[in-house]
Amino acid sequence: MNYPTIPEIDIVAAQKAEARQKTLTKPPKSLGRLEEISIQLAGMKADPLPDVNHKAVIVMAADHGVALEGISAFPAEVTPQMVMNFLNGGAAINVLARQAGAGVTIVDIGVASDFDPSLTGLLRCKVARGTRNMAKGPAMTRNEAEKAIAVGMNLLAQAAEKGLDLIATGDMGIGNTTPSSAIVAVITGLPVAEVTGRGTGLDDAGLAHKVKIIEQAIALNKPNPKDAMDVLCKVGGLEIAGLAGVMIAAASRRIPVVVDGFISTAAAMIAVGLVPDVKNYLFGAHNSVEIGHRAMLKHLGLNPLIDLNLRLGEGTGAVLAFHLIEAASRIL
Amino acid sequence: MNYPTIPEIDIVAAQKAEARQKTLTKPPKSLGRLEEISIQLAGMKADPLPDVNHKAVIVMAADHGVALEGISAFPAEVTPQMVMNFLNGGAAINVLARQAGAGVTIVDIGVASDFDPSLTGLLRCKVARGTRNMAKGPAMTRNEAEKAIAVGMNLLAQAAEKGLDLIATGDMGIGNTTPSSAIVAVITGLPVAEVTGRGTGLDDAGLAHKVKIIEQAIALNKPNPKDAMDVLCKVGGLEIAGLAGVMIAAASRRIPVVVDGFISTAAAMIAVGLVPDVKNYLFGAHNSVEIGHRAMLKHLGLNPLIDLNLRLGEGTGAVLAFHLIEAASRIL
Repeated sequence: MNYPTIPEIDIVAAQKAEARQKTLTKPPKSLGRLEEISIQLAGMKADPLPDVNHKAVIVMAADHGVALEGISAFPAEVTPQMVMNFLNGGAAINVLARQAGAGVTIVDIGVASDFDPSLTGLLRCKVARGTRNMAKGPAMTRNEAEKAIAVGMNLLAQAAEKGLDLIATGDMGIGNTTPSSAIVAVITGLPVAEVTGRGTGLDDAGLAHKVKIIEQAIALNKPNPKDAMDVLCKVGGLEIAGLAGVMIAAASRRIPVVVDGFISTAAAMIAVGLVPDVKNYLFGAHNSVEIGHRAMLKHLGLNPLIDLNLRLGEGTGAVLAFHLIEAASRIL
Repeated sequence: MNYPTIPEIDIVAAQKAEARQKTLTKPPKSLGRLEEISIQLAGMKADPLPDVNHKAVIVMAADHGVALEGISAFPAEVTPQMVMNFLNGGAAINVLARQAGAGVTIVDIGVASDFDPSLTGLLRCKVARGTRNMAKGPAMTRNEAEKAIAVGMNLLAQAAEKGLDLIATGDMGIGNTTPSSAIVAVITGLPVAEVTGRGTGLDDAGLAHKVKIIEQAIALNKPNPKDAMDVLCKVGGLEIAGLAGVMIAAASRRIPVVVDGFISTAAAMIAVGLVPDVKNYLFGAHNSVEIGHRAMLKHLGLNPLIDLNLRLGEGTGAVLAFHLIEAASRIL
């Protein structure tokens, strides 16, 4: 698979933004991280006065074969239900995106069930009817993973053509904290138990079982920690693959990416594993309650903007962070 | 001085909001602190579906006699210059308030110099031409302090009549971290050196001098830690007094207050010292870089929403926090 080239950060634009911050009527650095963000934005966008007028969130929905192992507090039927909720505008991400003035794109990249063909507003990019059960074998073929990445890259390209200054990533998929924990365990080498949390609400026994299933999947599939594509195929996540594609394509166009919580950050680990310079175009949105999230952020060198004990996903934390990034831009 | 009665938090409205959170299509508590804030808002506003449509920030400007002691990196002339900047719409608070859809009220409650009478947009409520030098005696008379509190209470009452769902407090006054550090040192009993920071940019020698001046002012004036009015008069801050008045009047009308940084939180300590139940109507906006801020927040039991290393004041952190509080309201 060919990935696009990622442009270097524009140091000159960043320096101009930094110089401008010093001319504004306020004590030097008194706006703290807002100033740093404004300088980062300028470097990413190669523009000393970067705009963030056009904002959007891409929410990828998919199912996970490993849900058969009982690793989630909710059944897989909730994935399509939540997709319907997104399309009806009644989910948290709709409310928060509206507040932030951001468009919402809902993508079926791998939901196990079929949606009514008459349904409008859903982007139908189903690569497979969910992944296979990683506890029994690889979650995806390489072909499926590459197709899902290409879906994300294409959707971002289409959004960029209409004008896009800032993109957030969101996810929906019952069971998707399980592949995300597997990804962070494999890539960082940390013990599974240290990076696996309760997801949407497992009890102690459920959590212990989830850890065991992830350990079993890693022992069986032996993903190569140095090969992000191998990790992705073995433990999966069609939405994780798709979001990685969004991030790669955004970085190639100098569009900053606001990475939401645990699942999106797993996707960022894959994207950066495939194309390391993608890292330069990422903002961490928030600290998720999921315990593995901190290890991911540390690995990627991201310092999130918000710490509100969120663990919903959908892109909610990223869209909340839009306000702060927009504030940084406006201050310039 | 007579203070208004502060209504009790409406437990029934808060419980209704909490019950509603449980019916929304998301895992329980997955929106973390946003859910808690929505429940708090409901209790404060006695409304299970609290609106935060009408938002405003009141910025109080004043000078400090103690500035003569060289405790600030900037000269007192900067106070009226910044007021002019606010009125011209070019300051950070203007930019951020516009983004948040919040009105901005600029008040001269005690600037040492006079503004051109033809100047529009400034609320002229000057109680004195700055405070007196607390290193030489009390900063204010009791009459001045009460007048300044009344100014804040009246301004809030006027704003509430036009419709106000959420109020932020902001400050401008060269030297005003000095009275704020004095207030937190006296009320908490912590050593001055532990709660005194560099303000707008003092060097080590400047900081040591500032600590010495505050220690001298406390030793000379002997403010009574149990008597907030005595503390206020002795170490001062006309804008601190005015903001305390804003908070008291807001709480009496069930209008939640978003407390900005170091100076606003000093005002909150005075307000709560005068009328303890005001505490129930406060939100902490952000963690200031000023080292004494944490002790203030701990004293008041506030857990701020944002941590971006801000130290500008003006209400900037509070107005950024508006987005998150509005998000909490919209989620309901």
